[in-house]
Amino acid sequence: MGEGSVVGVGLIGFGTIGTGVVKVLAENADVISERLGFSLKLVRVADLDTETDRGVSLDGVVFDSNASGLIHDPAVDIVIELVGGYDIAKRFILEAISAGKHVVTANKALLALHGKEIFKAADAQGVDVLFEAAVGGGIPILRSLREGLAANHIQSVVGILNGTTNFVLTEMERCGEPFEVVLKRAQELGYAEADPTFDVDGIDAAHKLALLTGMAFGAELTFEDIPTEGIRNLAPIDMEIAGELGFRIKLLGIARAHRGAGGEERIEARIHPTMVPISSMLANVDAAMNAVEVRGDAVGPTLYYGAGAGEMPTASAVVADLMEIAREKQRGGAGPVSPLSYRPEALAQKSLVSLGEVRGRSYVRFSAVDRPGCLAGIAAALAEEGVGIESLVQRSTGAGLADVPVIVVTHPAEDHALRRALANIDASGAVTATSVALRIEEEL
Amino acid sequence: MGEGSVVGVGLIGFGTIGTGVVKVLAENADVISERLGFSLKLVRVADLDTETDRGVSLDGVVFDSNASGLIHDPAVDIVIELVGGYDIAKRFILEAISAGKHVVTANKALLALHGKEIFKAADAQGVDVLFEAAVGGGIPILRSLREGLAANHIQSVVGILNGTTNFVLTEMERCGEPFEVVLKRAQELGYAEADPTFDVDGIDAAHKLALLTGMAFGAELTFEDIPTEGIRNLAPIDMEIAGELGFRIKLLGIARAHRGAGGEERIEARIHPTMVPISSMLANVDAAMNAVEVRGDAVGPTLYYGAGAGEMPTASAVVADLMEIAREKQRGGAGPVSPLSYRPEALAQKSLVSLGEVRGRSYVRFSAVDRPGCLAGIAAALAEEGVGIESLVQRSTGAGLADVPVIVVTHPAEDHALRRALANIDASGAVTATSVALRIEEEL
Repeated sequence: MGEGSVVGVGLIGFGTIGTGVVKVLAENADVISERLGFSLKLVRVADLDTETDRGVSLDGVVFDSNASGLIHDPAVDIVIELVGGYDIAKRFILEAISAGKHVVTANKALLALHGKEIFKAADAQGVDVLFEAAVGGGIPILRSLREGLAANHIQSVVGILNGTTNFVLTEMERCGEPFEVVLKRAQELGYAEADPTFDVDGIDAAHKLALLTGMAFGAELTFEDIPTEGIRNLAPIDMEIAGELGFRIKLLGIARAHRGAGGEERIEARIHPTMVPISSMLANVDAAMNAVEVRGDAVGPTLYYGAGAGEMPTASAVVADLMEIAREKQRGGAGPVSPLSYRPEALAQKSLVSLGEVRGRSYVRFSAVDRPGCLAGIAAALAEEGVGIESLVQRSTGAGLADVPVIVVTHPAEDHALRRALANIDASGAVTATSVALRIEEEL
Repeated sequence: MGEGSVVGVGLIGFGTIGTGVVKVLAENADVISERLGFSLKLVRVADLDTETDRGVSLDGVVFDSNASGLIHDPAVDIVIELVGGYDIAKRFILEAISAGKHVVTANKALLALHGKEIFKAADAQGVDVLFEAAVGGGIPILRSLREGLAANHIQSVVGILNGTTNFVLTEMERCGEPFEVVLKRAQELGYAEADPTFDVDGIDAAHKLALLTGMAFGAELTFEDIPTEGIRNLAPIDMEIAGELGFRIKLLGIARAHRGAGGEERIEARIHPTMVPISSMLANVDAAMNAVEVRGDAVGPTLYYGAGAGEMPTASAVVADLMEIAREKQRGGAGPVSPLSYRPEALAQKSLVSLGEVRGRSYVRFSAVDRPGCLAGIAAALAEEGVGIESLVQRSTGAGLADVPVIVVTHPAEDHALRRALANIDASGAVTATSVALRIEEEL
């Protein structure tokens, strides 16, 4: 097609992000066509709710609740899926693919669980499925992994992948308030959902890490393979002591490639609250922002930072995907870059490094009973599992409180040894609550 | 071509970066072909020095000093230009383009001066010219601007674009040593060239900012349009006081779009040492690292960080470009993305905002004569130009020293007013050396 031609876009799911996409397509139509040499035209929108006023104009756009009609509308070249969730979204995407339509989605949950099936269907049909908005919101992190760093053996991907939890952690540190109080405020401000489980328990971050791991290492991995721990157990005292020790606490997604002497590759992947050195770039990522650090064998450490969610940042990524697909569509087919960067035949299931094998220093907070011998018992239980103590501090506590915070920083130890020691201590009667352990990540 | 096919690569310029490219192509051949579905093969290398042992194997590769022979070798599909400089590099690139070869280069100086001519020739021949390594070394910042953020009106690009100067500034701050001492150490460590002019006077950063400005705003701009000030005038006391005021000093490239009420766009672009808030991401970019903050109207602030130079990081970017071109070559042509992101017909000369119009707070250090009335004279000269004083500190100085450091932080003022005041003060006999003024950048 020459200039003046258009590529037709259909949008399924007219919520917050969908509204942002409509805004970007309208308000930035000039710069989009100055870059493409042709126009993107929103031709059809489908949503069950056709009543609510989203505050944007849909002049000349078909708007109804008929998603299937949208998918099969010949004026629609690219289908945007912003319904979310699993079943219906998957059905729409597969229906669009089988109708020969290209797809853009922000649905990390779906791709982390059913990505393989969806990418295979798209490959067979010769259509594109792009999903930049699924990880890191508006940050072009997936493009960077798929293409910008493609000459590297990726060594690690470490990121703050969830804005809600980063907001909660930043506020807990700033105000010294407990998790529940800050979560409630985050919900009032719209930073957290009414049911915050996906965010605060690390599940959303695990979805994203699964996608990043595929792109980084060519590993077929679903998010269910990733050991995941959220931020519910953290208390303001943890932030306070982290600061004294030169750390900040971030919920990190961590993935690393372990290459054995024989060339076999194993993948370490985990989500948990982590102590990061205060001088690291990741430590300075505040509020609802996201950042991902990627290390490659040639490029060394790199970092990508921006808004990880929100109407307009997410729409920025969706429309970038539309532009990439539209260019390829004008050339008559799908793009040449594989969705997970590696050619499908090069993707492989890879062995996982178990969490227990991960070696490092840890911070542990015990709620100790205030009586003689208690400290000695904790120290002995750690020693029994070969976990050395680098430092130990007993904090003073308010009058009348039974439990005394005891903070231990361990020498580097394998995780399973530490966990066994903690299980013994928690069962011993020396503590009044489950001990809280945070891994310290030095290499940032 | 199917699997097992190859794309042939020729390398002109076998220095540090060229050696890195040979290493990446050899050591990462597995991951490159797993991502491409075919191989990149280095078939020919040309350099005037065919004697020095670079410590890499060139088995099966033609290696001689015949660049023109390389360009016209039918086995060479893509020519990498790593000669540097202007005349010869330009001749090689234009010769390769006219021979129908795609080009990868890291030559920011050349592109910042002659990019328009080169891109036009490539467009006419239907070949690609990619140059990711020209800005930010291994950081995929150009790809991010060209594609990842393509749906945005870019509002600003602000970056630490030169690793040498960032290393020098970081060391001056860390050790409290003068510029000359730290520069000498940087030269010994290989972070600075024997002739450091291009780096320390901001010229290299201006080359890079010119390229970024084209991509961000579609502005045809050469680096000669960019007001440029280097770091030679800075003293350790500036770092020390910056810290006390909550800032760090970075050599920034700053470009912003100013959109008038009538829709006309003017571009502000400048290179100078700048006070940045210590809590900003850019303030935490240390040593020889680079980072670029890009703000878009949809995505908000984003940041890209990594090694801005060096053998392997730069090679990572060169090989990423080879991979992109090779994919397109397999499909029979040039890629669909314009080299400066905007279609050539959408690129336009845009008016520049003069430095004098730029409004903001500044830090000024006067070397005042230690006598009554001197402070009053400085204050009066500032007042005369309408520059308000937010704070003024007179530092104690060592015994026997004639000049007294006087530090002023101004209220927001237009730059030309401040400069007029400083010229008057410097000419007045109230100071013993030229005053040092640093703009404070708040919006980071």
